Amino acid sequence: MAVYTHVSHEDIASFLQGYDVGELRLALGIAEGVENSNYLLECERDGAVSKYILTLYEKRVDANDLPFFMGLMEYLARAGIDSPLPVHARSGDVVNELSDRPAAIVSFLNGSSRTVLRNAHVDSLGNAMAEMHMAAQSYDVVRVNTLSLDGWKELYVEIGDKLDTISVGLSDIVKDELDYLSECWPSDLPKGVIHADLFPDNVFFDGDNVSGIIDFYFACNDMLAYDLAICLNCWCFEYGAEFNLTKAQKMLKSYNKVRPLTDAEKQALPILARGAALRFLLTRAYDWINHDDGALVTAKDPMEYVKKLQFHQGVKSVMEYGI
Amino acid sequence: MAVYTHVSHEDIASFLQGYDVGELRLALGIAEGVENSNYLLECERDGAVSKYILTLYEKRVDANDLPFFMGLMEYLARAGIDSPLPVHARSGDVVNELSDRPAAIVSFLNGSSRTVLRNAHVDSLGNAMAEMHMAAQSYDVVRVNTLSLDGWKELYVEIGDKLDTISVGLSDIVKDELDYLSECWPSDLPKGVIHADLFPDNVFFDGDNVSGIIDFYFACNDMLAYDLAICLNCWCFEYGAEFNLTKAQKMLKSYNKVRPLTDAEKQALPILARGAALRFLLTRAYDWINHDDGALVTAKDPMEYVKKLQFHQGVKSVMEYGI
Repeated sequence: MAVYTHVSHEDIASFLQGYDVGELRLALGIAEGVENSNYLLECERDGAVSKYILTLYEKRVDANDLPFFMGLMEYLARAGIDSPLPVHARSGDVVNELSDRPAAIVSFLNGSSRTVLRNAHVDSLGNAMAEMHMAAQSYDVVRVNTLSLDGWKELYVEIGDKLDTISVGLSDIVKDELDYLSECWPSDLPKGVIHADLFPDNVFFDGDNVSGIIDFYFACNDMLAYDLAICLNCWCFEYGAEFNLTKAQKMLKSYNKVRPLTDAEKQALPILARGAALRFLLTRAYDWINHDDGALVTAKDPMEYVKKLQFHQGVKSVMEYGI
Repeated sequence: MAVYTHVSHEDIASFLQGYDVGELRLALGIAEGVENSNYLLECERDGAVSKYILTLYEKRVDANDLPFFMGLMEYLARAGIDSPLPVHARSGDVVNELSDRPAAIVSFLNGSSRTVLRNAHVDSLGNAMAEMHMAAQSYDVVRVNTLSLDGWKELYVEIGDKLDTISVGLSDIVKDELDYLSECWPSDLPKGVIHADLFPDNVFFDGDNVSGIIDFYFACNDMLAYDLAICLNCWCFEYGAEFNLTKAQKMLKSYNKVRPLTDAEKQALPILARGAALRFLLTRAYDWINHDDGALVTAKDPMEYVKKLQFHQGVKSVMEYGI
């Protein structure tokens, strides 16, 4: 959690000359977000103050993907989804350059993320996710999911022999799961644009209702139900590893109301959930292994996702997810 | 630059129940500040939105000093100095506890710090510093300057033998300077409360005029002219080491208008400036030596202050500071 690139007030003010957002009143480096550098901006135009988020994209985001991400955010925001609306510079460009980095400005979303998740939150989440999926159906730019099966295999090649330093036996667990998923990972489910990182810190609420979805920097084209599988993992467990059936039920039901799931999607949920658990297990393990002890960013525990994976491995029927 | 302690929106909202500031609308971790964890808060009361800064004090600030710091800030703000006004909880206390840390809320100051320093800025700074010194004269809580001569000697004992790893010969430079200052460090100059860390990032401007002074966590009782000596070091050099006489002149002149310097103070400026250079040389060297390569906080170059020290060592008369 940190601003990686420090930009002076003067440099931000000068950058804003290229935009029609008025005069810079406040620029504050924000500590949230580990991938990029973010600033809260307040700009005054005709006596009215508007808030924006200025993002400088650090090396973890591939600049070639930015047109997909920014285009998607604009597409969704204009379709009425509560997501940040990118601001075009006078040149027309959304992605510009500041401090030798790609940089963009988006509208500020009200609300805040929740750390104590209640039924009402996952209820609203299911609804918002389905609406987002529906709205993005007609977005016609494409980005492959680099963190699906092939990406997991590449990660395993890179860190497989170090996994046992995290926990003895972990390398075998991952290898066996990869073998299993390689056999039966589905490919014929309804596809579209998914968020692919819809963790609680990327969802804002106003009261119990979703008021904003942010951080589209893993968004890609994949099976829509995979987004649900990710959320089964990151919204529906208590204390790290205890599955909360009520929450899963609420989320799936409210999703299903907006975009009815096909039978094939429902049947595939356990395996999609295993894949999603493995994805976060692997990227967390990667960060854990490559983590610098002195860094202020705290590496997240990969073992949480081992437990979740093992839960999903034990699921005999999709009914165990409450559907 | 980072939030060291992450506090959830819910926990901050709950903390604010103890204050009469209205309802929490926004809580954003701020990346500025390396000593403490800071959040920008927006609270709504009777339809009006007010901004505050919530600070959680990390281990580098001695909790025993907080009453001095917070009392000083309140004293100055109430005396009309543009500094953060601490907010009392309903209990009356200014320092409370959040996430097992001392925590306080202060008013938010408009304006921003400058990275390109011009004559008009130091002109306004001299004026603001003198007004702060005058206003604090009647503040009757006392805090010894732990980073004066004795503190420098302690730092030298701790890191003296490692200084040559930064630059060969640095240990001797520091040792010789400590010997010199031990002989002639003044003790009979006008004293009072000084800021002691009045670097450009702790001073906000609205246009060219000082609109706020922040970060009083090194404030202490010491010779008033020592604050000026610190500012000669951190406001009046270009490109790290080229002394800008015009700026020094502007700053000293505008200070002198509000609080006329005594002859003894003027004569002591070169030696005070040497001491100030040594102080920042030593603390920067300490951070450099104890710096964790992986930390996101960038250690500042101690050699900048070696060059400044050497400039002051060459000063033959206070006239070389333009006074």
